[in-house]
Amino acid sequence: MAKRRIGIWLIGARGGVATTAIVGLVALRNGQAGTTGLVSELPSFAGLDLPDWKDLVVGGHEIRSLSLLDTATRLAGEQAIDHRLLESCQDELAQIDARIRPGTLYRVGPTIAGLADLEIPRDETPREAVARLQADLEAFATSNHLEHVVVVNVASTEPPMDLSAVPSSWRQLEPLLDSPEQCPVPASSLYAIAAFESGCSYINFTPALGATPAALDELAQLRGSRHMGYDGKTGETLLKSTLAPMFARRNLQVLSWVGHNIFGNLDGRVLDNPVNKAAKVRSKDHLLSQILPQAPQTLVSIEYIESMGDWKTAWDHLHFAGFLGTRMTMQFTWQGCDSLLAAPLVLDLVRFTELARRRGETGTLKFLGSFFKSPLGVEEQSFERQFLVLEQWACQGHDQC
Amino acid sequence: MAKRRIGIWLIGARGGVATTAIVGLVALRNGQAGTTGLVSELPSFAGLDLPDWKDLVVGGHEIRSLSLLDTATRLAGEQAIDHRLLESCQDELAQIDARIRPGTLYRVGPTIAGLADLEIPRDETPREAVARLQADLEAFATSNHLEHVVVVNVASTEPPMDLSAVPSSWRQLEPLLDSPEQCPVPASSLYAIAAFESGCSYINFTPALGATPAALDELAQLRGSRHMGYDGKTGETLLKSTLAPMFARRNLQVLSWVGHNIFGNLDGRVLDNPVNKAAKVRSKDHLLSQILPQAPQTLVSIEYIESMGDWKTAWDHLHFAGFLGTRMTMQFTWQGCDSLLAAPLVLDLVRFTELARRRGETGTLKFLGSFFKSPLGVEEQSFERQFLVLEQWACQGHDQC
Amino acid sequence: MAKRRIGIWLIGARGGVATTAIVGLVALRNGQAGTTGLVSELPSFAGLDLPDWKDLVVGGHEIRSLSLLDTATRLAGEQAIDHRLLESCQDELAQIDARIRPGTLYRVGPTIAGLADLEIPRDETPREAVARLQADLEAFATSNHLEHVVVVNVASTEPPMDLSAVPSSWRQLEPLLDSPEQCPVPASSLYAIAAFESGCSYINFTPALGATPAALDELAQLRGSRHMGYDGKTGETLLKSTLAPMFARRNLQVLSWVGHNIFGNLDGRVLDNPVNKAAKVRSKDHLLSQILPQAPQTLVSIEYIESMGDWKTAWDHLHFAGFLGTRMTMQFTWQGCDSLLAAPLVLDLVRFTELARRRGETGTLKFLGSFFKSPLGVEEQSFERQFLVLEQWACQGHDQC
Amino acid sequence: MAKRRIGIWLIGARGGVATTAIVGLVALRNGQAGTTGLVSELPSFAGLDLPDWKDLVVGGHEIRSLSLLDTATRLAGEQAIDHRLLESCQDELAQIDARIRPGTLYRVGPTIAGLADLEIPRDETPREAVARLQADLEAFATSNHLEHVVVVNVASTEPPMDLSAVPSSWRQLEPLLDSPEQCPVPASSLYAIAAFESGCSYINFTPALGATPAALDELAQLRGSRHMGYDGKTGETLLKSTLAPMFARRNLQVLSWVGHNIFGNLDGRVLDNPVNKAAKVRSKDHLLSQILPQAPQTLVSIEYIESMGDWKTAWDHLHFAGFLGTRMTMQFTWQGCDSLLAAPLVLDLVRFTELARRRGETGTLKFLGSFFKSPLGVEEQSFERQFLVLEQWACQGHDQC
Repeated sequence: MAKRRIGIWLIGARGGVATTAIVGLVALRNGQAGTTGLVSELPSFAGLDLPDWKDLVVGGHEIRSLSLLDTATRLAGEQAIDHRLLESCQDELAQIDARIRPGTLYRVGPTIAGLADLEIPRDETPREAVARLQADLEAFATSNHLEHVVVVNVASTEPPMDLSAVPSSWRQLEPLLDSPEQCPVPASSLYAIAAFESGCSYINFTPALGATPAALDELAQLRGSRHMGYDGKTGETLLKSTLAPMFARRNLQVLSWVGHNIFGNLDGRVLDNPVNKAAKVRSKDHLLSQILPQAPQTLVSIEYIESMGDWKTAWDHLHFAGFLGTRMTMQFTWQGCDSLLAAPLVLDLVRFTELARRRGETGTLKFLGSFFKSPLGVEEQSFERQFLVLEQWACQGHDQC
Repeated sequence: MAKRRIGIWLIGARGGVATTAIVGLVALRNGQAGTTGLVSELPSFAGLDLPDWKDLVVGGHEIRSLSLLDTATRLAGEQAIDHRLLESCQDELAQIDARIRPGTLYRVGPTIAGLADLEIPRDETPREAVARLQADLEAFATSNHLEHVVVVNVASTEPPMDLSAVPSSWRQLEPLLDSPEQCPVPASSLYAIAAFESGCSYINFTPALGATPAALDELAQLRGSRHMGYDGKTGETLLKSTLAPMFARRNLQVLSWVGHNIFGNLDGRVLDNPVNKAAKVRSKDHLLSQILPQAPQTLVSIEYIESMGDWKTAWDHLHFAGFLGTRMTMQFTWQGCDSLLAAPLVLDLVRFTELARRRGETGTLKFLGSFFKSPLGVEEQSFERQFLVLEQWACQGHDQC
Repeated sequence: MAKRRIGIWLIGARGGVATTAIVGLVALRNGQAGTTGLVSELPSFAGLDLPDWKDLVVGGHEIRSLSLLDTATRLAGEQAIDHRLLESCQDELAQIDARIRPGTLYRVGPTIAGLADLEIPRDETPREAVARLQADLEAFATSNHLEHVVVVNVASTEPPMDLSAVPSSWRQLEPLLDSPEQCPVPASSLYAIAAFESGCSYINFTPALGATPAALDELAQLRGSRHMGYDGKTGETLLKSTLAPMFARRNLQVLSWVGHNIFGNLDGRVLDNPVNKAAKVRSKDHLLSQILPQAPQTLVSIEYIESMGDWKTAWDHLHFAGFLGTRMTMQFTWQGCDSLLAAPLVLDLVRFTELARRRGETGTLKFLGSFFKSPLGVEEQSFERQFLVLEQWACQGHDQC
Repeated sequence: MAKRRIGIWLIGARGGVATTAIVGLVALRNGQAGTTGLVSELPSFAGLDLPDWKDLVVGGHEIRSLSLLDTATRLAGEQAIDHRLLESCQDELAQIDARIRPGTLYRVGPTIAGLADLEIPRDETPREAVARLQADLEAFATSNHLEHVVVVNVASTEPPMDLSAVPSSWRQLEPLLDSPEQCPVPASSLYAIAAFESGCSYINFTPALGATPAALDELAQLRGSRHMGYDGKTGETLLKSTLAPMFARRNLQVLSWVGHNIFGNLDGRVLDNPVNKAAKVRSKDHLLSQILPQAPQTLVSIEYIESMGDWKTAWDHLHFAGFLGTRMTMQFTWQGCDSLLAAPLVLDLVRFTELARRRGETGTLKFLGSFFKSPLGVEEQSFERQFLVLEQWACQGHDQC
């Protein structure tokens, strides 16, 4: 079998998650990192036709002019990445940096736009932006001899969009790309359109709109492509989707579930804008009412606390009634390093998406539901049950199962 | 269909769990309690041929002379049960009290024996004790016109027994019942033998030996009976079996898992004896190494803190490595009322066990694995996957599935 | 020495704090309560000429028509007060209820005004309101043969007022009482004015304006009266003023201090209005920058979570740098019953204020600084050092010291 | 004024605390570290005649053959010290390493003795050991032209000794030094004797016996020397001595105070031996009953959890009764880096001890009480009140106060 080189194209390529994924991929290729944190390396997925770490090539879009090394150095200063690992992969980071192209700021909101310092065309129509992004993707694939490219959106959280304002078919949405005033989808969706039109897969790891509208799912299917999202499930929400089912199974009535999150990375700075925060909070909150038979009072806060750096700390307080109405309490704190939790999932998603392509799947990749806070087309919100679906999918046509 | 009255026979019938189950059952029958905390009342189990609350009759064995009302009053003082509920069910408690008979102290250890103040024969052989217990069960069934009796062991934790010292077949074990010196099984097993010989089912809600030995499982099958255990999974261990799978699925390496438990009820006083505590700690600890691919360093403590009363507070500290080896932390505290968490499960287990009988099942009831810290014959320790087994079992031959 | 009867006049007399103080006072008089939680009962204050519990008579102002028993019953349902204690003091509660008079709604904001259902004059000028309140106070003193009355404001939190808009002398402020449009002080200050004009002392246990303006302090001194405030220090802020000094003494640099508070009582409902909340947050937050040499980033949230009832739970996360810049973390959770923490301090403040009167003190009672989040005229914010001032004051002219 | 060079002689000189103090001192001298964590650098102590960082010279006793750099590298791997700081002070560490001499193992217990791999005389009499240690101290002072040497014991925790077995006068204790069988004091005391006989001051930063016996205090005074101890107060106990006074002042009755500590450094390995642990637990536990009027039930555990490294995490659970007996809860977790918390205090203690010498003080230095879990000769256990004593002492004869 000829070697098949696969591309990873990261939107927000110099952010914390992207940089950590890149450093991690380099470390995996060089034998400097173990497989901890990588779902695709579990025994359940051994023997699958997943791409090798050494066959993955990285590029991406970005709106800021700092370097991958700058971001990586900041993460090392926050004790997320080891300084010594960083020193050993500087050259590879520089090579990847050279493959990063300017993104688009269409409808990203003022907070994100204010971060941009690359020369980004600001008077393009959405269609022109898509054409430019598409050209970047195609040049990347061609010059690196790639069989396929998976686009992963790990950019900062966009303000929430009104999904109902997006026409439900691609035929209706497509003409609006010519109008900067009327086009109802933001940057994250333009990247998705560019991906589908180039034959790339698209994964939305953020709470942005991306390929969520039905019109974009239709486009993916029309072009024989595939996508999944949205919003990677890495910390507090992962715990919610793990713990809430336990309360449901035991018929314990959750009365209130309060979650306070503090952290200090760039994503935190963006989320400090209430508009951007709204999208995130909505994505973190809805699943409780889907899992629990009686929706509890919920509260989710996300606050930017500079000293925390990339370390997100969540405190959750659950108040619940047991037998005879007696009220009890569970609390947890989660002290996780955000980028380190997200980055391996980005690599996993690329591998599983590529495997889906090899298996001929198009449209929404529902078997990836366990990776997302708001999995498209998936009703089940119990993490363990979502994971069973992934295991069962992996087994299909696989003689080890 | 004629009305079928079913008996619940509680070992440790005046303890906190038993008393709460009894108060709860009375409240359910009188329409004074909701179904919160009762697994068998979930929609997943609607339409099954489970016994009605009003068809359940309670009796039991006990070694102490206090009354059910004494225990219930203590629980109300600890804010576990509402004083006003108590007042309304005093008469029913007194009726049930009259059906409680003296238990046995065979090999229960000095701490439990020291609690006994009922007139309990202390010079019986194990065989004589079994015969006496059996007579109690049969009199209970006869005088109350019961179709079947489910014996549930909710007594205090016995010291750990050496399972390997118990002969592996009933034919070898049976003759040893004549010798108080040589009989290698404790009170909890004598109750199980009496249950099987009387055609009753046996559920072991404690970490005691009970029907765990193969010889007793054989006896259950010989007599067409059934059993399950051991050690009800109600709090910290329930959380372990819920959270540990999440770390396993995400390939996060748990380095250490420390759990400290404090509480102040009678069970706590008994567990303050290091010998009794050993059995409990073992039961709370083993499942992590079954769920997690690399066994973490673990520590479990259970300490008697008088002021806590029936409120068990657990603090767990999980230290884990993520991608690139970065170490992160999760902590939780669980403030649960022990008896209130356990009592509804006792009622659920009786209902499901009776349904298994109606379905003709004998031997080990593995489908009840989700209820126990150490489920007999069950490898799977993930709570959510254990619960799926229960749901699938419920569906068998049931047109709603 | 002739027996001296002293009045306690509570603003917000049917709220949770007032009701708990009343139930507690009745219980103390009847020998049904111990002295736990009462500062004035500590050995350090033994032998002082403090009024006896049996010499205290209660009345108050209120804007709602529910009864003291209604509030007390709600508190019992939330497990703050014991049901049985309540039953035994119903008659005394009814007697006190009969002494409660309608308050004023002047500038209390729409949230508080919306709670009012007593017939409260809404077209009075501030001067007319003061006159009416004053008449209530004087009738209370006369008909109960009181030597002195201490007015304590335990009403809900008013919206923050602009202190700089209040003239700095009484001579300038006084004429504005005639104008409902121009009078720049709210209800809490009108109660203070009525108190001073009647010769009563005034204690502000809330973050409302009360007697904070210099013009009111002047009035207190002109009338030979005394006052102190503001905002009782009972939970999270008490801990801040205890813990922050430790970090300061050890030269540990607090980088960020985040405090999230959740609770579900009426005060919580009022604070759910962001305007009212602002006053509270300000009062809870400022002291850190006074204690710590380098002001940390701070965040304080107060959220209404209905299921919590009177139980306020605070989670605080402290991030600090130690030697060589190494960053460390402290977290605490505080699960306190708000009314039960505040109520004994109300009784203590009445006793100490009356003692100050007996000692001839007028103006701001700075020695009471340890009781308040924002103690008037007190720079020191370390609780332990504030308490030393109270102990030293107690010793003055007292032979036990 | 001629420059006065002062020696710091560390017992356990290659342990975590000593190594961190050494790295920190080098960093302070080189301007690479700020003053965070150093009490003696607070404004309250500005202007005092404290030795400069550049005038301090370090030596010490040790029983292990690893190097300071080995320990420092381990601490850097545990994210206690920054790798880059370490690289810049390697030469200075090597110079100090050369001044470290073999210690004594007299009565240190098997766990500590098992760590020794330096060539340490094992058949010396206690007197011979003292003479050898004394010679080391005197050679250090002479060859480094030191005006004075402060010996600080930061070795691992010895097993608890029976203080009542030590004669109460030096005249009685001194002859026993000839008998390895009869001499009732351990290594920590032999170091103290050697210190006093050489005119050095002695600070006991551990829970070992050290100079605690009255006979050694007498010797210190006879030789015009001074000492203080014992057991540095750096984390959980510091919090106890800060929080417990708050409960006492507010008359809140602490019913139980449970503290669980986990950590993974060498001290943790030694404390994993129950005999050594007993000394530590006793030192951490006693102060609550001194501060609180009614002694609560207490529980202290210290457990070795390897993955934690130098990061000690404490969980404390406080259960307390408030007004009307209502029970409430406070919990805290402390995640501190043990060596980084202790090391600056070692440097502070040397400076303050030297200042006491310059002021002509001998015997027990009670003004240092705030630094110790069990301060010799000090009744007061409130940290804030102990600190006031330090501030007042600093002011004596100092014109800034």
